Amino acid sequence: MKVTKFGGSSVANSEQIRKVGDIIKDDPERKIIVVSAPGKRNKEDVKVTDLLIQLAESVLNKEDYAKRLQTVLNRFLEIAEELEIEQHFLQDLEQSILTIISDDSSDRTKMDKLKSVGEDSSAKIISMYLTKLGLNATYLNPKDAGIIVSDDPGQAQILDESYEKLYKLRENDEIMIIPGFFGYTNDGQLMTFPRGGSDITGSIVAAGVKADLYENFTDVDSVYSVNPTIVNNPKEITTLTYKEMRELSYAGFSVFHDEALIPAFQHQIPVSIKNTNNPYAPGTLIVAEKKHHEKCVIGIAGDTGFSSMFVSKYLMNREIGFGRKLLQILEDESISFEHAPSGIDDMSVIIRDFNFPYEKEKKVLRRVQDELGPDNIKMHRNLAMVMIVGEGLMSTVGIAKKAATALTQANVNIEMINQGSSDVSMMFGIQSDDLESAIKSLYEVFFNDDE
Amino acid sequence: MKVTKFGGSSVANSEQIRKVGDIIKDDPERKIIVVSAPGKRNKEDVKVTDLLIQLAESVLNKEDYAKRLQTVLNRFLEIAEELEIEQHFLQDLEQSILTIISDDSSDRTKMDKLKSVGEDSSAKIISMYLTKLGLNATYLNPKDAGIIVSDDPGQAQILDESYEKLYKLRENDEIMIIPGFFGYTNDGQLMTFPRGGSDITGSIVAAGVKADLYENFTDVDSVYSVNPTIVNNPKEITTLTYKEMRELSYAGFSVFHDEALIPAFQHQIPVSIKNTNNPYAPGTLIVAEKKHHEKCVIGIAGDTGFSSMFVSKYLMNREIGFGRKLLQILEDESISFEHAPSGIDDMSVIIRDFNFPYEKEKKVLRRVQDELGPDNIKMHRNLAMVMIVGEGLMSTVGIAKKAATALTQANVNIEMINQGSSDVSMMFGIQSDDLESAIKSLYEVFFNDDE
Repeated sequence: MKVTKFGGSSVANSEQIRKVGDIIKDDPERKIIVVSAPGKRNKEDVKVTDLLIQLAESVLNKEDYAKRLQTVLNRFLEIAEELEIEQHFLQDLEQSILTIISDDSSDRTKMDKLKSVGEDSSAKIISMYLTKLGLNATYLNPKDAGIIVSDDPGQAQILDESYEKLYKLRENDEIMIIPGFFGYTNDGQLMTFPRGGSDITGSIVAAGVKADLYENFTDVDSVYSVNPTIVNNPKEITTLTYKEMRELSYAGFSVFHDEALIPAFQHQIPVSIKNTNNPYAPGTLIVAEKKHHEKCVIGIAGDTGFSSMFVSKYLMNREIGFGRKLLQILEDESISFEHAPSGIDDMSVIIRDFNFPYEKEKKVLRRVQDELGPDNIKMHRNLAMVMIVGEGLMSTVGIAKKAATALTQANVNIEMINQGSSDVSMMFGIQSDDLESAIKSLYEVFFNDDE
Repeated sequence: MKVTKFGGSSVANSEQIRKVGDIIKDDPERKIIVVSAPGKRNKEDVKVTDLLIQLAESVLNKEDYAKRLQTVLNRFLEIAEELEIEQHFLQDLEQSILTIISDDSSDRTKMDKLKSVGEDSSAKIISMYLTKLGLNATYLNPKDAGIIVSDDPGQAQILDESYEKLYKLRENDEIMIIPGFFGYTNDGQLMTFPRGGSDITGSIVAAGVKADLYENFTDVDSVYSVNPTIVNNPKEITTLTYKEMRELSYAGFSVFHDEALIPAFQHQIPVSIKNTNNPYAPGTLIVAEKKHHEKCVIGIAGDTGFSSMFVSKYLMNREIGFGRKLLQILEDESISFEHAPSGIDDMSVIIRDFNFPYEKEKKVLRRVQDELGPDNIKMHRNLAMVMIVGEGLMSTVGIAKKAATALTQANVNIEMINQGSSDVSMMFGIQSDDLESAIKSLYEVFFNDDE
């Protein structure tokens, strides 16, 4: 059986939902369907989840929310009318939103409940539509499905006991339509996952039912070897491994929320990326293992928003514990670091900007100065990381040469190179301004030059 | 004024000592002379210091030491006769050795005292010889010079108070000949420095008297850009900075004991490397700062004897403190690490083999397994590090390209790249077997290709 997830753009309007219906009808293995809330219908549009957050903010601020409520209802009205869904659906929806608004739950719980309305309604509409198509389909609430989560509104984590419950869904004959993005605590409280939560739900359900395949329908034909907004018509990736996917996500690939696929990965469920608008395109398959081959580089990724803290101290390498103490100071301040390249008398710590806000900088630098007595400390903001990704990369002679050649051709200065641990990626620290030209040049060298 | 140090090969026999005399006579600025014990006269020869250590071992093991004593005395007899040094010198020498042997000091102190006889006798002979040449020269014992050290036989460290005492030597009109390799505690106990100790003495004295120049006479014309046993007739380095020298030493350049020049560096004394056998060759000047220029790479160095401990754990990068805890375990076991490159879900720690003996490996790996619960730990022995050294290297576009190209041409797989902190070096981890071909190829690319 397959667990099939449709993202926001796949359920943005009736036209898209008709495609979803066709896709489900097309393959009887698609037994469990996970859906997002309706996304943008065009570039200027607003996602339903964002409309719901705006509504929730009005409610919590005790402002007049009538107009915002109407905007939400109008989105669903349009879809329901075009799909000829029974009228009572909209009345039920309005009533359930009003019930949430007037109940006496805390602000955070109220926010979570309102946010979940998008996915929940989407699942209900689709199950009604599928029934109309003559399929044996049913809406399944996450509570009934067995998605049990931690009590952490907006940041819920799946509890392990869910997987056993979810496995029982295999016994069900119907096509089950489960809303993504939320689950329930053991006490029955609704909690949403972090943003990107429908991907999380899909991945959890696929893991729980031990699906043969987790299909993730979105609006691109595949994962591309490089960001298509930087390079025109880049190569599609047909197969990649979990590790490669993880490295690509780390360095800015936004096909998925970084951690959404973890449950599928941990349970070794293959993941297929498909396009709702072009469902017969082969898509991209993400698997646990694949054969290495000579042209091992499968993608180029890059991301800005890194900083480096450089510390030098004459004879540092004779001082046992220097590096550990430096990392300890960061840990004390709850700053997680990415990498720590070192010379003989110096060490740099690479940190994501969002982990190291400016307000922490002063304290950290003072502690380093006071406790480690370095000769020099320098903060270096505005760094970007560009990564070459591919299993077997480290054991392939010549990759570093190609990469360094590409960066030199683009006149990009390499501030940092980090290779030495992962066999899946090689990472270069560069100036943020150089990122786009670096990515273009690396793409040329690895994907166009050596046919 | 200059402090001038002559190494073991420069005082190995009477012929060499005559050259030393000429060099001292040639420049009245050479006011303080530091000498090693006589070194090897030819490839099969044994250094006097090693003869003395053998003698000390016989004494401490209560074996018959007469033959070993005679071997030591014969070395000095030959030199003294050929230089026509007064006869009583040898009688005094034998008497002083016998006094050390029969005194009631501890084994370690006795070892230190016997080891120091080589340098001490060398200084006495040279001062007598210089006097014969008509120079106003005098032997100066390190105690009288003011070399005060910590109470740590064989591992003495200079105490800061020495520098003030040494500064007073400037008032002395005579040429002072100071034996290298040892000093005295405040209690008057003789202590030797770690091996390479005459370099340490020279560097300390130069720092103490605030010399204009510290001259280090050895048996090579200069510091070479690469190991001359690997590349024929390599380029000579005319000027290099302390930092460059330090990086080269780190990666296997053996012109100096790694830490010997630290006192000179810390007191900003320029250091000149000269050849006793070719004293008018320009030599190599080591300075605090120099102008950067485009061809910034000044040397290629490499060393074997590294290991890497690879640790991977899925989602490591979400675990604050993972890296710090790993380094903590090493610190607890008194293992100093060199570098710690990391991926997203993995981290490698590069350690010198001598800091991580096999007997510690099992315990460390078990602690890492128990305390960090990684998915995978792998030890990787037999690594070599090859380094490209030159100030300004990191801010020069294209260095990484050239280096990676050279390694690819030599079919060397790069296991690790470490750049990101030092502006002075770029480091590649490779298989030990590949070291020589890597060095050759890097030398070609950086020193022969781009005239």
